[in-house]
Amino acid sequence: MSTDAITPRSKDFAQWYQDVIRQGDLAEPAEVVRGCMVIKPHGYAIWENIQKELDRRFKATGHKNAYFPLLIPLSFLAKEAEHVEGFAMECAVVTHSGLRASKDGGKTGLEVKNPLEEPYVIRPTSETIIGHYFARWIQSHRDLPLLINQWANVMRWEMRTRLFLRTSEFLWQEGHTAHSTHAEALEEVHRMLGVYADVAENVMAMPVIRGQKTDSEKFAGALSSFSMEAMMQDGKALQAGTSHDLGQNFGKAFDVRFQNKSGEVEYVWQTSWGASTRLVGGLIMTHSDDAGLVVPPKLAPIHVAIIPIFKNDAERSKVVEAGEQVRRECVAAGLSAVLDDRDDLRPGAKHFHWEQRGVPARVEIGPRDVASGSCVIKRRDRDPKEKTAAPLAGVGAALTALMDEIQQALFARAKAFRDSRLVKVDTYDDFRAALEGPSGGNFLLAHWDGTRETEEQIKKETRATIRCIPFEGDGEPGRCILTGRPSARRVIFAQAY
Amino acid sequence: MSTDAITPRSKDFAQWYQDVIRQGDLAEPAEVVRGCMVIKPHGYAIWENIQKELDRRFKATGHKNAYFPLLIPLSFLAKEAEHVEGFAMECAVVTHSGLRASKDGGKTGLEVKNPLEEPYVIRPTSETIIGHYFARWIQSHRDLPLLINQWANVMRWEMRTRLFLRTSEFLWQEGHTAHSTHAEALEEVHRMLGVYADVAENVMAMPVIRGQKTDSEKFAGALSSFSMEAMMQDGKALQAGTSHDLGQNFGKAFDVRFQNKSGEVEYVWQTSWGASTRLVGGLIMTHSDDAGLVVPPKLAPIHVAIIPIFKNDAERSKVVEAGEQVRRECVAAGLSAVLDDRDDLRPGAKHFHWEQRGVPARVEIGPRDVASGSCVIKRRDRDPKEKTAAPLAGVGAALTALMDEIQQALFARAKAFRDSRLVKVDTYDDFRAALEGPSGGNFLLAHWDGTRETEEQIKKETRATIRCIPFEGDGEPGRCILTGRPSARRVIFAQAY
Repeated sequence: MSTDAITPRSKDFAQWYQDVIRQGDLAEPAEVVRGCMVIKPHGYAIWENIQKELDRRFKATGHKNAYFPLLIPLSFLAKEAEHVEGFAMECAVVTHSGLRASKDGGKTGLEVKNPLEEPYVIRPTSETIIGHYFARWIQSHRDLPLLINQWANVMRWEMRTRLFLRTSEFLWQEGHTAHSTHAEALEEVHRMLGVYADVAENVMAMPVIRGQKTDSEKFAGALSSFSMEAMMQDGKALQAGTSHDLGQNFGKAFDVRFQNKSGEVEYVWQTSWGASTRLVGGLIMTHSDDAGLVVPPKLAPIHVAIIPIFKNDAERSKVVEAGEQVRRECVAAGLSAVLDDRDDLRPGAKHFHWEQRGVPARVEIGPRDVASGSCVIKRRDRDPKEKTAAPLAGVGAALTALMDEIQQALFARAKAFRDSRLVKVDTYDDFRAALEGPSGGNFLLAHWDGTRETEEQIKKETRATIRCIPFEGDGEPGRCILTGRPSARRVIFAQAY
Repeated sequence: MSTDAITPRSKDFAQWYQDVIRQGDLAEPAEVVRGCMVIKPHGYAIWENIQKELDRRFKATGHKNAYFPLLIPLSFLAKEAEHVEGFAMECAVVTHSGLRASKDGGKTGLEVKNPLEEPYVIRPTSETIIGHYFARWIQSHRDLPLLINQWANVMRWEMRTRLFLRTSEFLWQEGHTAHSTHAEALEEVHRMLGVYADVAENVMAMPVIRGQKTDSEKFAGALSSFSMEAMMQDGKALQAGTSHDLGQNFGKAFDVRFQNKSGEVEYVWQTSWGASTRLVGGLIMTHSDDAGLVVPPKLAPIHVAIIPIFKNDAERSKVVEAGEQVRRECVAAGLSAVLDDRDDLRPGAKHFHWEQRGVPARVEIGPRDVASGSCVIKRRDRDPKEKTAAPLAGVGAALTALMDEIQQALFARAKAFRDSRLVKVDTYDDFRAALEGPSGGNFLLAHWDGTRETEEQIKKETRATIRCIPFEGDGEPGRCILTGRPSARRVIFAQAY
């Protein structure tokens, strides 16, 4: 059905990405449902681990999960002008509430019945319906802040889709909060962007740059948007999480008001922030290699795969017993481990199997290893020819320490790569050169005159967009690379997913 | 906006149920989206705890989570005749892929655009789309068993809705498995029904009766269906989880075949099983009382609410300090605890607040308690006038032990109630009498002649349905209560949610 070869990154990065996903058993396109995907068990297990890490941090910062309807009345979308412009146009629209058998039903024999008085759209995001409930729940300053998160599926019908990165339906969380002052809302916006960056860097081992989006890239309906941007191995940017200052826009559209301590009635200040299954795509493109998926230990569904090596039944029973001992030690040390004692696969095929699934460490045990009380460890993040012998005694602790090492090594490698491609450019020629050719694909720190027109022209000519106005950096003024007009500080340009 | 009184169960059970949900801050009707609900943070936290318990058991029995598309092509539904009959008729139908601004758009100014060639329905359940992928994933007996679970939202447009029990959109998990033999599939069907019963009885403290559904009550497309049935406090039954033997029906409809060990190609044997947010409704109607929600400790988002009692600032600082100590001891003992030090509420209002939210234990600390090194504990499952003094030293351990005690007491009470209303009846007059009047509402163990007609007539005349043919029971033959024809064994009749 499908070849098991992985195209090298240098040959075709987009094909490599698809191959890694297929061979890692992560997902497949749902060809029967436009632009959607099936998330397979291994991909879903990684997403569940990301979810757990995020959810724990949301709760630790005082947020509570809730659930709002999937369907949004058309009239709700119409209430915030920028929002409807940005989201409603490519939505899945529910127009009928049933089917009936029919001779006119074509090949299915079914036709729609019961037209709805007002159609619904499947939520592309939930600011509107949550705004409606916030208006019911909030009366007084004592009801604030209201800190809600929702784990949900959303739909935005996309023209060009790519597994995990851009699919019509995707899974995400959307935080929605209401505050009594703008300052407090802004603090929340930055706090949650910090939570995302913490998970990205310390769990996913994916370095990110935080900053503000330009007006043309901000969320439809927000005063301002902030994002974290990660660099993929082709030098392109991935917006990996966003946090929005909604100001009082939705408060006014949905009449979300509260009585302040002085007894005056004001509109609330709202925020929203989201991260999605797109993170799985970012994870893949940050760490994986030409042999397939690489998963950082903190997200790996399986940390250790144990592969017994034997030629006959007598050897088999010895090495499988030793392997089972290693597995138990790993589990006791808090690691997830699999003893691969399948009889219909040779050791080479097993290595290949676990390598392509990104398991951080493989442990090999042969009869001579058992005799000498040792085993052989291969790290997924290193050259596959590199092997280390380790004593069987205490192997659980050794592998636990190795997991920390691999986690750090992956982050360090990704960060070194990113930093090597984070370049300052001062002329438009250098700018264009840095995006093309074999060493192309960079984050370009460049001056920009702050206008939408310049941003638009650079995008048209180079496909690079302003990823963010970074919080950090030298902050020195200069002159716009395109127009030569004054610029307050460098921004980050890149081609992006 | 809403009164805070709870209608007594004896006066109006349905109103009591709504009142408990409102006062417990569990959910509210989403009046703007037909038949849907908003699950509020406290309700969602209980659902999350149920999810965790189920998910852990699914994984321990070898299942893996995955995610399939929300939308199902119409042609998929059409493939299994019984299934489409049972599910497709009241579905949400997606017919368009976008909106556009329009003068003809009425009050919203929006109208639909881009009609789809083939409409989609929002999944009412996922047998069909998962069948399609199983056909791609399964080739050989080595690919079996395939054990998949999905956590998802589903939609079935219902005419009469009730919070948690029956809403158009609901949250659930749906297990879908494929096996090489019918025997193995049946074993799976019973294993998962066992997992549900374990969670119902040992986590939710809700006794259940397991059995087989009659043909007229089975899942559309299954060979046979099994359920667990719980008794609510009005004596009505709640089907709280179902597990289906799908035979080869979906295998044939979606061409899911495998090569067996002898090299022959066969259709797989499939199962599916589901439990939903309906369980939260069952939990409420099993344990709660006229003062509001009662939550068993194993599902309680908060185990202990600590209420300081004071008259002035000097007292306040002492009792709050002692309360904080209790809170820390609880947390160290693995309990979730809240110190309610709000200054704008009196102790009585705080008691009321936590009582209505079903917190298993409230701890009261006043200045005299601090002086004597003790505190006062109130159990949610007992008369509110009952108080126990406990030493502050070791209060964490005492409360932990109390949680076990409450968990067991709730189960024992629910079981005693259920057993007291599980009655054998041998005549149709007794049958009808047992369903009506002040002591009405019972599970009736009665003989039935095994025909659909008799079942239908009893249902029409009494609104009682056959909940299940129980696995346990005396198994003695007898004569049908309605027709007098021979019956192999008693079945359970009840009015049901």
